[in-house]
Amino acid sequence: MMIYMPIAMALLGLIYMIVKKSWVMKQDAGDGKMKEISDHIYEGALAFLNAEYRLLAIFVVIVSVALAAVSFIVPTTHWLIVIAFIFGAFFSAFAGNIGMKIATKTNVRTTQAARTSLPNALKISFGGGTVMGLGVAGLAVLGLTLFFIIFFWVFMDSAWTNTMDMTIVLETLAGFSLGAESIALFARVGGGIYTKAADVGADLVGKVEAGIPEDDPRNPATIADNVGDNVGDVAGMGADLFGSYVATVLAAMVLGNYVIKDMGGMIDDAFGGIGPILLPMAIAGAGIIISVIGTMLVKIKSNDAKEAQVMGALNVGNWTSIGLVAISCFALVTWMLPETMKMNFFGEGLQEISSMRVFYATLVGLVVGALISSITEYYTGLGKKPILKIVQQSSTGAGTNIIAGLATGMISTFSSVLLFALAIWASYAFAGFYGVALAASAMMATTAMQLAIDAFGPISDNAGGIAEMSEQDPIVRERTDILDSVGNTTAATGKGFAIASAALTSLALFAAYVTFTGIDGINIFKAPVLAMLFVGGMVPVVFSALAMNAVGKAAMQMVHEVRRQFRDIPGIMEGTGKPQYDKCVEISTQASLKEMMLPGLLTIGFPIIIAFVPMIFGMNNMAIAEMLGGYMAGVTVSGVLWAIFQNNAGGAWDNAKKSFEAGVMINGEMTYKGSEAHKAAVTGDTVGDPFKDTSGPSMNILIKLTCLIGLVIAPILGGHAITEEVSMTEIESSIMKEDTKKVYVEFEVESDDLATAVVSVTEFQNGENKVEEYVISGTFNEVNAKVERLKKGASSIKVKSNRAELEEEFSVEVRK
Amino acid sequence: MMIYMPIAMALLGLIYMIVKKSWVMKQDAGDGKMKEISDHIYEGALAFLNAEYRLLAIFVVIVSVALAAVSFIVPTTHWLIVIAFIFGAFFSAFAGNIGMKIATKTNVRTTQAARTSLPNALKISFGGGTVMGLGVAGLAVLGLTLFFIIFFWVFMDSAWTNTMDMTIVLETLAGFSLGAESIALFARVGGGIYTKAADVGADLVGKVEAGIPEDDPRNPATIADNVGDNVGDVAGMGADLFGSYVATVLAAMVLGNYVIKDMGGMIDDAFGGIGPILLPMAIAGAGIIISVIGTMLVKIKSNDAKEAQVMGALNVGNWTSIGLVAISCFALVTWMLPETMKMNFFGEGLQEISSMRVFYATLVGLVVGALISSITEYYTGLGKKPILKIVQQSSTGAGTNIIAGLATGMISTFSSVLLFALAIWASYAFAGFYGVALAASAMMATTAMQLAIDAFGPISDNAGGIAEMSEQDPIVRERTDILDSVGNTTAATGKGFAIASAALTSLALFAAYVTFTGIDGINIFKAPVLAMLFVGGMVPVVFSALAMNAVGKAAMQMVHEVRRQFRDIPGIMEGTGKPQYDKCVEISTQASLKEMMLPGLLTIGFPIIIAFVPMIFGMNNMAIAEMLGGYMAGVTVSGVLWAIFQNNAGGAWDNAKKSFEAGVMINGEMTYKGSEAHKAAVTGDTVGDPFKDTSGPSMNILIKLTCLIGLVIAPILGGHAITEEVSMTEIESSIMKEDTKKVYVEFEVESDDLATAVVSVTEFQNGENKVEEYVISGTFNEVNAKVERLKKGASSIKVKSNRAELEEEFSVEVRK
Repeated sequence: MMIYMPIAMALLGLIYMIVKKSWVMKQDAGDGKMKEISDHIYEGALAFLNAEYRLLAIFVVIVSVALAAVSFIVPTTHWLIVIAFIFGAFFSAFAGNIGMKIATKTNVRTTQAARTSLPNALKISFGGGTVMGLGVAGLAVLGLTLFFIIFFWVFMDSAWTNTMDMTIVLETLAGFSLGAESIALFARVGGGIYTKAADVGADLVGKVEAGIPEDDPRNPATIADNVGDNVGDVAGMGADLFGSYVATVLAAMVLGNYVIKDMGGMIDDAFGGIGPILLPMAIAGAGIIISVIGTMLVKIKSNDAKEAQVMGALNVGNWTSIGLVAISCFALVTWMLPETMKMNFFGEGLQEISSMRVFYATLVGLVVGALISSITEYYTGLGKKPILKIVQQSSTGAGTNIIAGLATGMISTFSSVLLFALAIWASYAFAGFYGVALAASAMMATTAMQLAIDAFGPISDNAGGIAEMSEQDPIVRERTDILDSVGNTTAATGKGFAIASAALTSLALFAAYVTFTGIDGINIFKAPVLAMLFVGGMVPVVFSALAMNAVGKAAMQMVHEVRRQFRDIPGIMEGTGKPQYDKCVEISTQASLKEMMLPGLLTIGFPIIIAFVPMIFGMNNMAIAEMLGGYMAGVTVSGVLWAIFQNNAGGAWDNAKKSFEAGVMINGEMTYKGSEAHKAAVTGDTVGDPFKDTSGPSMNILIKLTCLIGLVIAPILGGHAITEEVSMTEIESSIMKEDTKKVYVEFEVESDDLATAVVSVTEFQNGENKVEEYVISGTFNEVNAKVERLKKGASSIKVKSNRAELEEEFSVEVRK
Repeated sequence: MMIYMPIAMALLGLIYMIVKKSWVMKQDAGDGKMKEISDHIYEGALAFLNAEYRLLAIFVVIVSVALAAVSFIVPTTHWLIVIAFIFGAFFSAFAGNIGMKIATKTNVRTTQAARTSLPNALKISFGGGTVMGLGVAGLAVLGLTLFFIIFFWVFMDSAWTNTMDMTIVLETLAGFSLGAESIALFARVGGGIYTKAADVGADLVGKVEAGIPEDDPRNPATIADNVGDNVGDVAGMGADLFGSYVATVLAAMVLGNYVIKDMGGMIDDAFGGIGPILLPMAIAGAGIIISVIGTMLVKIKSNDAKEAQVMGALNVGNWTSIGLVAISCFALVTWMLPETMKMNFFGEGLQEISSMRVFYATLVGLVVGALISSITEYYTGLGKKPILKIVQQSSTGAGTNIIAGLATGMISTFSSVLLFALAIWASYAFAGFYGVALAASAMMATTAMQLAIDAFGPISDNAGGIAEMSEQDPIVRERTDILDSVGNTTAATGKGFAIASAALTSLALFAAYVTFTGIDGINIFKAPVLAMLFVGGMVPVVFSALAMNAVGKAAMQMVHEVRRQFRDIPGIMEGTGKPQYDKCVEISTQASLKEMMLPGLLTIGFPIIIAFVPMIFGMNNMAIAEMLGGYMAGVTVSGVLWAIFQNNAGGAWDNAKKSFEAGVMINGEMTYKGSEAHKAAVTGDTVGDPFKDTSGPSMNILIKLTCLIGLVIAPILGGHAITEEVSMTEIESSIMKEDTKKVYVEFEVESDDLATAVVSVTEFQNGENKVEEYVISGTFNEVNAKVERLKKGASSIKVKSNRAELEEEFSVEVRK
């Protein structure tokens, strides 16, 4: 029954989301101009979504065909993976749709609310964020759990058989995660290119050439610019975390299955023997309800509140959620896991692990998630030392500003990576790779809350823009500015959270990959593996460069279009001619989706080439699996570094520039906007923009998608860790060992030409059960003859089959 | 006798160097002002060297004490490593001394020669480069070979015993390499900080504040600036390649020893059974003579020659050298190696390898060295597509120029890394890690030639500066400009060569490390190893940031000093007061050496912490060795990426700026120096300066030194791959096997309390000799009793000892 708990939680979360959504939608959307601007942004966002969906549809069809082909050629991959993939893509896109719609509807309502009071404005903007967060988290948990239940029923008849069957369930489920992460590629990378192309295009022609202010409705690209905020920061971040959420839980389930394997192939618990597999889903489910509680706590009372109070309100919600997750992890871990478990530690053999150690691992995840956010805040926060240094360096020109910003981003990798290495070490020491995956799961449990905090930023930003464009009372803008300023901080910490989650997720996927392929590990002392480690390390660097170049190209197209409209539309500058906003939105949309093809191809192409080209040349599958593992490690290590570097450098430049708004002290002189130093800081920000909004955040997707593709390829390479032909003698000698307790055979007959028998032999060794699994396959007659031979040798055997007449169970007096 | 061949070659090279040097010195050094400026530069360079030596002396003492302590505590490390270390440092410093002196003497002679003709100017500047190149290469080969001969005599009595003794010889020899690479840290990192601090300091106050031209003798920092060129480009590059050269040959020797081990512990050849170990030294020796021949071919005849002809002359010399190295590799490989060898390939067991395949591996090294230089030239060359793109992007401001430059550097990692991965793969496939190390050795064989080509650039640059300052006829400057322009291209390709050599060297060291420690490989699926891979990946990024920040800090000190002199020295601006050049040189020297401490500490500290902190906590040595290996791999992969990225981005920005000198076409308009686009390009170059001259080149040292420290720590961790206590039963059963041919015992008695017996058991299995080695240690009585027991079991035994009475040899009829 526990299996339905996450679904129930997800549904509760979704219901709350719908209630909240209708509450937000019922709020006053303001009058004339406000509404008009908001509608344009809404339509622009929809236009992007529609274009994205068209492209997505093509992409999904192509990948589906490829997956289908694979599943028909490779016996260990089931065609249901295609369905899972399609639904993963659909759920992620749907979550993005909800998020974008609510964000673009909430902005104007926030503006309107800010006309009355700040607490109201916060309530509405954060309400919009909550809808977004719960939509993403609810759909992620709902989809993943639903498909798990379906596949558990299809492949295992909803009851535990053996770890090999469960592996097939989880391998098929990986399709769901792959679908979700593919959408994230489009949303995060495409969105990142979109938002910066529109931004740069609008500024270059509007502000610089035509001399009209920012957000001026006469600028045809201004709507695209505002849409971009939603496309990049709302939809992109949402898809990113949706992908992380699903992948983390999946990886933890895979590793949970291996815990069961290490414990002898089956455990006896109150959860149908799949407690360790259900646990990550249960944590995710609990996290949704906790996030709902957390969001309810975010409120301020005083209309005179400042940034500190708003930040405080968010912190109350956030820390409460994290605390509640810790408590629920304790409860769930002690409830759902056996009190002591056996886990295989590399090179140290089986070790006894108490369930409390799994709980400690989840604590590691929670602490690291919080600390990495703090580190990000330190390196990118207004008024912090690194920012003040960049500000000082701006006085000697753009060159020194850039060097200082680059150095800040680079230095920031120090504490982040050390902390991260410590997290890997500690969570592994506590509970092996299952511990690493659960650390990630615990961290991700508050995803809904994190997203609510994240999404409220761009909503407030947009609200401020609408207030400015519709010429509201300055108090309105003042109030939205308070929210926006807090939103900037949460945006930076949110990026830290996204990186940390992506990194831990990738590690968990990496571990799942190794277990799926059945390799002994990834030995970088083998030259081909080392070569692939280098290649993997290079990919994030080249990916980042491509993303940066893409922004440049897309921005240029936007520049040409805006120039054309200024030239061709009569009366546009006088406000009598209406600019064709949709054309600019179209350009930004098309260009961003086109320009993300090359980096996307790089991401998807490399693992496929590494896996299949050597295969064509007849290389050993295990050797290929190890090479691909080396590649994945290279991408992950280098990707994490470049993500931290680019995000923090970009964030630091941004806030160094913003520091000039309130004035800064340089060489004993107060310096403001418009000074030479400020101009240098603006140049730094120009460099930082693609860093922090395009290439930096894309790294998350790159590393996760790489590891997921590896995971989907894994069964093709590994065939469940049994590629070598085992001889009957070997199986028989295993069956006839003194310590062998029982033999379980799963005899699947597909046709006369193809039958498979999975033989699980449980041995009792040194006080613990150990399961060896063997696969026999061939024509029906061959396999049947072999199974008959096994029956003769075993003292206790159970044969289960899709042909009832083959089933058998007997047990004789145990020999001695 | 072959063992003396490399020494002979090195001496021949050094003699040729002395002849060439006295020829250069005999050339006319010009008159009054020329000579005065040149003397200032010479003195400044000497001042840096002296300061560096003082600091070095302290450093060498500290490290020597540490090494001595280690050698007394750890039985497997011999105290002679201290001597080797000191001499390694001394030889490297001496080579740097020769290079700096000749470079600062040649510059003015080149100016003087340029007054008569271009061919003469080339002859002299390249002559200076040749002296530098031969000094470095000659001393490297001489020192390394000499110490090998000494240690071979000390530990093995100059005759083959077993691979374990040879391992001790090579472990001790690693001290020489460590010494050399430590100097490289000072020279390359310190030099890089020096040159940019002086450059920026001179420009900021002189050009910007005081409005006097570049290289104006009134500027107190101008001499420091010119000294910087020599310190960074001549001494830094020289020390870098000296270190690579020594480390490469050493690593190849270590792996050669393991080839012998794989072949049964001894081979029968015309080189005392150490052909595979001598081969890398022989290639290095041949390379010196080949380089001498190559340098002789560099000449032009026509006084009207342009860049193309000069470049052509260099190319003739360079390509001839590379061709001759290929031929000599063929000759030496076929002569010195057994026709077929056995090598242990990871996971594939022993394989038979023909010596031709070793030759193919050397070809891989030569081709890759050449190709990586070409790639570097493509991404940084004037008139090439990437540069033109940066030039175009300069028209929209510094921001877009910076983005384009960063993207170029990042994209350039694609082909370099793929090529590099291919090189690892191919050379390993041909001949295992011995092949990788020999690929590096072949590439490095032309080091003298490469350095000659490299050093001639800054000499010509200085010559042009002297011509300008001493107001020569414009034709003189025109001629030196031709040389300088070619020098810029060779500087870029030289950096490519330095990275490629550092990377291959590190890999060879990495392989040597694994064999020294005796671990099975480095499995990144173990969480602590993976954590260290992350930490290792982070270090080059933080190192680069520290180096960049160091330039900023040192430059600021210079700025204050120049301002002080302008303020305090009467008549300085009128040319009546003499600026205190030495003060600026002192500042730059002190600041650079001080600022390199932190990055240096990072480089040295991390491997030591990783090795010894877990040891204190009682972690298993093999596990630590694997972690340290993961760290080394992380540093190497990330370091190579950041080296390529920073060098190429910096080179590209530099040449994008230079493109404006001849004028460039932007948006259909010719644009020159002084335009807004040019200003943007200058900003890009400001960012690129520390990239290409400080942090980028430092990566070479970082990765090599990291791997070398690992190699020196290796015996402490590994104890020659025999850490587990072997029981006597195990040794006895090995001795009494039917296939055992002979037993060799090396019985070393240090005192009554400490004796060691190394037992080598040669077995004849499947048609080949296989040697197992065991170590017995304890008090004399214990060990003696065990050896006596072994004598009883063996049918053929030879005992050698430092106590004559213990020696014994007998052989009975072989049982069967």
